[in-house]
Formats: sequence, C-alpha cells, structure tokens
Amino acid sequence: MSKDTGFYSIIDYTVDGFDTQREFVEAFAEIMERWVRFHPGYRSARFHVSTDGTRVYNIVRWASEADYRHFVETSDTDGRMAAISGALESLSGTAEPRMSGIPTYTVVREIGPGPQHLDS
Amino acid sequence: MSKDTGFYSIIDYTVDGFDTQREFVEAFAEIMERWVRFHPGYRSARFHVSTDGTRVYNIVRWASEADYRHFVETSDTDGRMAAISGALESLSGTAEPRMSGIPTYTVVREIGPGPQHLDS
Repeated sequence: MSKDTGFYSIIDYTVDGFDTQREFVEAFAEIMERWVRFHPGYRSARFHVSTDGTRVYNIVRWASEADYRHFVETSDTDGRMAAISGALESLSGTAEPRMSGIPTYTVVREIGPGPQHLDS
Repeated sequence: MSKDTGFYSIIDYTVDGFDTQREFVEAFAEIMERWVRFHPGYRSARFHVSTDGTRVYNIVRWASEADYRHFVETSDTDGRMAAISGALESLSGTAEPRMSGIPTYTVVREIGPGPQHLDS
C-alpha cells in the first residue's frame, strides 16, 4: 500500500441533535466553498456525522504540509474565523468544539483487509 | 462526485506525547489485524496522528452499515474488548478516550477543490 503523504486538519464538534448536525454540515460546507477549497493543494473536506446525531468530524485533506502552511500564511484568517463564528451562531442548537492541541494530522498507518493475525 | 456509501467507526483518544502516540498506533494496528480486518466488508483502518503528539484518530471504514452490524453481531466482542484493555495498559504513558455517544458515522458531504463561492 502506498504511503499517504497527505496532510490533514480535523474539525471535531459535539452537537445537540440531528437538526443541529445537519445545519452544522451546511454551514461548514459553505465555509469550505467560500474560504478554503480554492487554495493550492486543497484536496477535500469530508463531513462525518454520527448516526446518533451528536457529533460531526470534518476531515480536511491537503496535498502536503507545505500546501497547508501556505494556506495558513496567505489566506484571510480573520475573515475565515469570523465566518466560523457566524456559522456557529446561526445554528438553532449548540455545537461544542472537541479539538485539543494543534488540529493537524498525518496518516501514519493504514491496515487493509487481510487474513487474521494470530499469536505467533 | 459519487456518494460515499461507506459506514465508519471512529476511535478517538488523547495521548500524553509522541512515544505514547506511536505505541498506541502499534497496539491498535495489531488489534485490527487480529480481531477486525478479516471480517466481510472491512475496508480499512487509517491512523491519523496529530503533529503535536497529543491525539490519535483511527477511522475504520466498512463497505456498508450491514457489514458493520454483521461484524458486531458475529465477532468476539469480549475478546476484542479485552485486547483493547490490554493495549491501553501496555502503553508507557496515558491515553484517554474522547468518544461521545455512539461512535458510528456516515459521510454525508464532500467538498472537493473548486472556485471560490462568493456572496450571491
């Protein structure tokens, strides 16, 4: 399996139900379209919603760490932050961030399908 | 873009540094190999590690919700849970779960690269 050389940021929130979850995805999808997706090296934002309506992960993929750093340095951070605040305020319910530390990631290991490994 | 019909579980932990982060990935990769990856419909487990050494997400993909349910119903849950407890105890540092609610997910939206959307 080829090594994943992508660079990720993960946006992680708890929400108070299905309505807020759906509104959160709509609002943050719009933020990606207005503030992020046209920057070089942007690959995708994938919105994972929990089946119980209580959580959303947005996993944003960049081609490389250099592309992500370039985005951070050259984009309108104040404008984007204001848009995120506005998105959160627009929700009919509540959304609480669950991020901790610096929310950038690499994928260091992938386990594909295969036979069961038993004790050696 | 084709709709993502996969079904996901997301394992989410904070850890106390790079050593524990690396040990966590090793231990949980082994759990996937011994307890999960040979079940029908298993697609992948991808270990996302934060660049600051404080967090790990393992995103496990199944072909469908039915495959995931079949895994839950037919697999050795007690054995797997014991293996997870053993893995956590084997770490030289600490790892704290950050999951909330039921940790199963679908991907409802993907935003690919494209032009900037401006106010209409």
